[in-house]
Amino acid sequence: MGRYVYLFEEAVGLTRFELGGKGYGLVEMTSVGLPVPPGMVIVTEACREYYRNGGRVPQQVLEEVRQKLEQLSAKVGRRLGDPERPLIVSVRSGAPYSMPGMMDTILNVGLNDRVVEALAERTGNRRFAYDAYRRLLQMFGRIVMGVPGEKFEEVLKRYKEREGVKYDHELSVDALRSIVEEFKRIIKEHTGKEFPQDPWKQIEMAIEAVFRSWNNPRAIEYRRYYKISDDLGTAVNIQLMVFGNTGPNSGTGVGFTRDPSTGEKRLYGEYLPNAQGEDVVAGIRTPLPIEKVDPEIYRQLKETAEKLERHFRDMQDFEFTVEDGKLYLLQTRNGKRTAQAAVKIAVDMVREGLITVEEALMRVSPSDLNQLLHRRLDPRAKVNPIAKGLNASPGVATGKVVFRVEEAVELGKAGEKVILVRPETTPDDIKGIIAAQGVLTSRGGMTSHAAVVTRGMGKPAVVGCEEITIDLEKEQFVTASGVVVRKGDVITIDGSTGYVMLGEVPTIEPEMTEELKTLLKWADERRRLGVRANADTPEAARKAREFGAEGIGLCRTERMFNAPDRLPIVREMIMAATEEERRAALEKLYPMQLQDFKEIFRAMKGLPVTVRLLDLPLHEFLPPAEELIKEIYEMRLRGASEREIEEKLRVLRKVEALREHNPMIGHRGCRLAITNPEIYRMQVRAILRAAIEVLREDGETAEVQIMVPQTAFAKELEIIRKLVEETAEEVFAETGTRIPFKFGTMIETPRAALTAAEIAKVADFFSFGTNDLTQTTLAFSRDDAEFKFLQPYLEKGILKENPFEVLDREGVGRLVRMATQEGKAANPRLEVGICGEHGGEPNSIAFFHEAGLDYVSCSPYRIPIARLAAAQAAIREKVEVSVTV
Amino acid sequence: MGRYVYLFEEAVGLTRFELGGKGYGLVEMTSVGLPVPPGMVIVTEACREYYRNGGRVPQQVLEEVRQKLEQLSAKVGRRLGDPERPLIVSVRSGAPYSMPGMMDTILNVGLNDRVVEALAERTGNRRFAYDAYRRLLQMFGRIVMGVPGEKFEEVLKRYKEREGVKYDHELSVDALRSIVEEFKRIIKEHTGKEFPQDPWKQIEMAIEAVFRSWNNPRAIEYRRYYKISDDLGTAVNIQLMVFGNTGPNSGTGVGFTRDPSTGEKRLYGEYLPNAQGEDVVAGIRTPLPIEKVDPEIYRQLKETAEKLERHFRDMQDFEFTVEDGKLYLLQTRNGKRTAQAAVKIAVDMVREGLITVEEALMRVSPSDLNQLLHRRLDPRAKVNPIAKGLNASPGVATGKVVFRVEEAVELGKAGEKVILVRPETTPDDIKGIIAAQGVLTSRGGMTSHAAVVTRGMGKPAVVGCEEITIDLEKEQFVTASGVVVRKGDVITIDGSTGYVMLGEVPTIEPEMTEELKTLLKWADERRRLGVRANADTPEAARKAREFGAEGIGLCRTERMFNAPDRLPIVREMIMAATEEERRAALEKLYPMQLQDFKEIFRAMKGLPVTVRLLDLPLHEFLPPAEELIKEIYEMRLRGASEREIEEKLRVLRKVEALREHNPMIGHRGCRLAITNPEIYRMQVRAILRAAIEVLREDGETAEVQIMVPQTAFAKELEIIRKLVEETAEEVFAETGTRIPFKFGTMIETPRAALTAAEIAKVADFFSFGTNDLTQTTLAFSRDDAEFKFLQPYLEKGILKENPFEVLDREGVGRLVRMATQEGKAANPRLEVGICGEHGGEPNSIAFFHEAGLDYVSCSPYRIPIARLAAAQAAIREKVEVSVTV
Repeated sequence: MGRYVYLFEEAVGLTRFELGGKGYGLVEMTSVGLPVPPGMVIVTEACREYYRNGGRVPQQVLEEVRQKLEQLSAKVGRRLGDPERPLIVSVRSGAPYSMPGMMDTILNVGLNDRVVEALAERTGNRRFAYDAYRRLLQMFGRIVMGVPGEKFEEVLKRYKEREGVKYDHELSVDALRSIVEEFKRIIKEHTGKEFPQDPWKQIEMAIEAVFRSWNNPRAIEYRRYYKISDDLGTAVNIQLMVFGNTGPNSGTGVGFTRDPSTGEKRLYGEYLPNAQGEDVVAGIRTPLPIEKVDPEIYRQLKETAEKLERHFRDMQDFEFTVEDGKLYLLQTRNGKRTAQAAVKIAVDMVREGLITVEEALMRVSPSDLNQLLHRRLDPRAKVNPIAKGLNASPGVATGKVVFRVEEAVELGKAGEKVILVRPETTPDDIKGIIAAQGVLTSRGGMTSHAAVVTRGMGKPAVVGCEEITIDLEKEQFVTASGVVVRKGDVITIDGSTGYVMLGEVPTIEPEMTEELKTLLKWADERRRLGVRANADTPEAARKAREFGAEGIGLCRTERMFNAPDRLPIVREMIMAATEEERRAALEKLYPMQLQDFKEIFRAMKGLPVTVRLLDLPLHEFLPPAEELIKEIYEMRLRGASEREIEEKLRVLRKVEALREHNPMIGHRGCRLAITNPEIYRMQVRAILRAAIEVLREDGETAEVQIMVPQTAFAKELEIIRKLVEETAEEVFAETGTRIPFKFGTMIETPRAALTAAEIAKVADFFSFGTNDLTQTTLAFSRDDAEFKFLQPYLEKGILKENPFEVLDREGVGRLVRMATQEGKAANPRLEVGICGEHGGEPNSIAFFHEAGLDYVSCSPYRIPIARLAAAQAAIREKVEVSVTV
Repeated sequence: MGRYVYLFEEAVGLTRFELGGKGYGLVEMTSVGLPVPPGMVIVTEACREYYRNGGRVPQQVLEEVRQKLEQLSAKVGRRLGDPERPLIVSVRSGAPYSMPGMMDTILNVGLNDRVVEALAERTGNRRFAYDAYRRLLQMFGRIVMGVPGEKFEEVLKRYKEREGVKYDHELSVDALRSIVEEFKRIIKEHTGKEFPQDPWKQIEMAIEAVFRSWNNPRAIEYRRYYKISDDLGTAVNIQLMVFGNTGPNSGTGVGFTRDPSTGEKRLYGEYLPNAQGEDVVAGIRTPLPIEKVDPEIYRQLKETAEKLERHFRDMQDFEFTVEDGKLYLLQTRNGKRTAQAAVKIAVDMVREGLITVEEALMRVSPSDLNQLLHRRLDPRAKVNPIAKGLNASPGVATGKVVFRVEEAVELGKAGEKVILVRPETTPDDIKGIIAAQGVLTSRGGMTSHAAVVTRGMGKPAVVGCEEITIDLEKEQFVTASGVVVRKGDVITIDGSTGYVMLGEVPTIEPEMTEELKTLLKWADERRRLGVRANADTPEAARKAREFGAEGIGLCRTERMFNAPDRLPIVREMIMAATEEERRAALEKLYPMQLQDFKEIFRAMKGLPVTVRLLDLPLHEFLPPAEELIKEIYEMRLRGASEREIEEKLRVLRKVEALREHNPMIGHRGCRLAITNPEIYRMQVRAILRAAIEVLREDGETAEVQIMVPQTAFAKELEIIRKLVEETAEEVFAETGTRIPFKFGTMIETPRAALTAAEIAKVADFFSFGTNDLTQTTLAFSRDDAEFKFLQPYLEKGILKENPFEVLDREGVGRLVRMATQEGKAANPRLEVGICGEHGGEPNSIAFFHEAGLDYVSCSPYRIPIARLAAAQAAIREKVEVSVTV
């Protein structure tokens, strides 16, 4: 049993995990002499103890708090409940990882019927004092005592209407006094208990409420989305209140030491005069830019920003309050930022000598690069914005307008693209935001809930768009110019400019900024894993090369078969009644494949290109049986000729003959090649001839790698290797040119991984097909799992993440490790890569680095992500090595 | 380069692998003083060298043969080609494992135009000499020189008709002399080469022909069926000819030291006077029982039998020839026998002190027990045999009559049961015999090809049924009483009695003989693996217990759901629109399941019963979508009411909603329980209540084990364990009775095996579901694989056996080993079994023993097989340990 409670000045050296993010910031700021109101931290261990204790605050915690309150009282000369010099505090949550707005905070704790009068006397501002008391009652009533928030809102609304004012702070003292009485009555009515007049009782209950809020549904939801452990718990900060709402010389604000949207080095922020912090975060009033603050305060803020960056060596997002002209800092943390800003800040800070290259590389989240690599509005397109709001989170999103969160979730699940339109968002809306392509709000600023959350997710958002008027009842909004947009209408929002447009707007490819190129160059110098692309077309190959791919790790050939001009020929081949007919169809496909490969090899000259031979089962190229049955009956109903019907029946019979119970693990990949070798012969011929022709025409060609899918037995590979080598010799003889090529296999069946040592003797390379390997290892058919049970599995915590997105390290990963190790032991020249979707997912890339793979291969747009993630894995390993050595 | 050729007396100490089975027998018999005609063995290494040498007989082999022939000549006083005292030899194949009739043998080598005259002079029997020459020409022409056999047969047939005789040996000398000339002409015409008159040339060519015959298609087919390695090669035996066809005082025969059908200890065999060995094996003439031989020879044969058994310590099958009243032994080998005989001989020999109990246990092939454990004719059934033949291979078989081998293969593949009916069978028919349920021949004896081969396979056969006349043209046979049986008619044959009956005849359960019980008792004393049964019904449970099952290792519950009286209720549950409707349907199923479990627990009192909770996906209980679509259209076509159609559409929509792309790896097993826990709750309630009710009613109940299917994550099991324990507490509270039970899981997904250490912490037991584990590990959907590509995989040697029958040790087996080891390390009290089909397959059982499992579970009829196989595994291990220690 340790110690639970520390004054800020006592806690230097404790970590973020003990103090929570907010507490850590307060302690650090205190230690460097910034003006922080004094207070204490209850460490996260107390929260964990609370839950272990069955939801009761441990006695020791309360005793320590009482003792520290004594010290605090002595220091500031104020006492809890003292009618002369009352101690008034805030009780705030503060988890190790920032969860903005997810957990609870209660301000103005310590006020009661007597103290409010004393406060009024002391400040000479009765309106302020009663407003503070009203706020306490409202927050305490809702958060601690569980009264529905709208009960209080209704009262406030009624009084504002009665007095003819718009904002809470315009209410008269008399109104506030009446409101206080009504609030107390509401609490009594709703809970059967009086609002506690004892300030110590208030503190006790507030502490418990903060602990409890760690497990409120929206906090759990948030942690699941951001993959934050449920076991961390929250710290509690009890801090002397300072008031931003004592009058025009007071106010509250948020500052960023650099622009969180662009990364530009300038003090950036917003300020709301005569307000408490909650007013800013809730986005109810639109704040002023920070430059509009009192010049002396602005000077102090700029100094503070410098100090913070020097101390924390990162861009900071800080909260401040000005009480009667005096600046106080209430919070600091590493600022959330767009991907573009993250890259610029990281690179700039290296140049400024603040951080090392390795630190810079670790500062940018690889998945965030996604934002930089997607499309933006085509500048040549005619754009007619119907409204403009704040450019809160960059990127372009198009979708149907929806107003209700539940509807966004439903449509999102059904695969529809939607834009969630709300006056403002609250933490309860998180599910809808996740489901939507983008968010549009009519209220709130750059630090409102909607803005912070969407930036974090890399989702486009336009916020504070006051030009539109939303009618939730009618499910529509109207722009300033009178355009009516109804539920279901398609709009496009551009989170980089703040524009809202009707319909879908053309977009163009992103370009890489100079900073991003620099960062990725640094990444390339540090990573060990190679990065190749999954690309099936010449365009994709070129794009991949542009993004820095070092080759093609997976060129699928079935997509080529599926092209509309080829499908009829492929069907001809499948339906062939005789061997000759089949060969004739293959002969028609051959020149098409040849051309495909030539273009790809040309685009990738000098780099390796791994072509995977046909994988899909033949029946996938035929129409589904049920469609055919329906068609046949429809033909009968409309009296089609027997000949027509017989033709259709022929197709149906073939489809039925080819049909499989479980096509995923059926007659496909190399199994098809064993029974029908002619398709692979055609493909190998096309591949090698293409490479030779490019070599002749251009003087250089790609490094050809031929890859077999679905291998389970070394002997399968032996047979196909023979087929490939025979065909190669034919091509070499015909062309009079020999080119080197490699022959290898996907490792995508558990048996292939389990017998990798045998298989490695017949293969020059392995490439893990982690999509299929995940399906077979877990026995989860992906198509069925994602539709039927993956969601409940995530909700019940059986899965931490979708295993088709993030590699299952314990199961699939164990096979990957085994096969890599044993394959390389059996064949030291074996090259090992991975070409499943996990190849572009940072967490999985870290695993592949650890497991000793040679390269990852991913979609072209994920190449920069993979380059950075691979560098981070290498840096992390270096750090671990230097720690353990 | 070693030595290749040994005289019989020089080769003592060499093994069966070097000498081949026949050579080994001759060498051993020579060494114990039995009357073996002198000769030599060319060891199997020469055959391997022949193939390595590109199909040329190595020069050294020929030199050694020539040198040994010199020694042989000196010893017997005869020389090759000598017109006075010619040396005449047989050149016989002899592989390490017996492959009866599969490879080639040439008799009478050394005869030519001059020597035949000398032989006629010396024996004073011109008919015999020319018959021998005719036989040499015929065999040499066909086997060595490749002339089609029917060319010679036609000539023989013509001469027999011309002379009005039935058998070859009735032909006149003049006819034989003409035949010899015609045969020489046929050879010349067909091959363009003269029959070689040089006896040494004959020997050279005959040796090569024997080597070549190792790789003839029917030998390869046979080795594949019996899993004999292609790399062994054959030895060649060159031996002084003795003649069984010199006259009435000569003859040839086959003896068994015990009855190969029943195991009874008596000399058993057949004798054909005035014939060469090939006449017996080919089954052309029906031989006499061995008792009919000359009494002095009979006495010598009985002595020989005693000597052979004392020397070889096993039942022997020997060939002998009597030449002019003198007995010669030409071959001995361990005799093939029925399973019943194998058991009796093994047990008797222990009692006679000839062998140890361990040897006895190793002498019986577990798979052969199958023969003893299947049904036989119901003695109460009215049986009207239409014919009777020899009871060549026991057991009853029913099927459609087919006459052509190709048709048997085709129908067999299509799953039809057929009886192959042939005048006699030849090694070329092996595929048809494999495909058929049983074989009926009109010619041949107990040692004919059909008899030997079917006994080896444990397939019923009636042979030598001379009462029927087969017309291959018309595809029918006619019995003595005039019954005509046509292709496609169903008949039943009883290989234990020799009866042939029309139609299907009722059969009854087998009983275990006293010897089998003894053998299995010995097995039980020596095995380490437990043996449990897969049984879903009370009848199966009782049968399993009778056969010695020590519990039920797998009681599937989906079969109970599939019963015709329950399916409508199950559908009700699935189609339920509301939660209440669903619960109501489950409530109806509950008493039915309760009753099922009560009966099973009662049958297994005192023993463990592992009940597997529902595994199948729900949609398997609904009609297929295509059927519904067809029905709906048919309803429209016949003008059904909209209400009826809507009802059907509702079902279709539900079916489509439940449908999966890959149901094998879809929403099933515990995945279904996670999303729909109410089904498991009902089942657990029924299981525990049933056990408690049996306990109350009978004072004793089964040991309940509850098993979860399809687990992939420890967390799944945690959640279901909680559900089970909660339900159990409810049942215990309701009944006021607590019973102990175990909770465990199938290991049937690769991930479960890979994370066994985690899973073992939540489980009391594991049971490997090797059927599904094979599907997922190999990524082979069984339904699709067996239909689409397993056969080509076996033919191309990718698979040595069907992995769904014999466990894939390298892939699936590796997972089994890992999971057993790691599971037990994590939970030392973990019980580990296997309940896939491999649990009843001897080779796989040996593996499970080695892998350290605690028990196997298999179908009731395979329980004795498993008991024996488990004992053999334990004995083998002991031997290996004693060898390595």
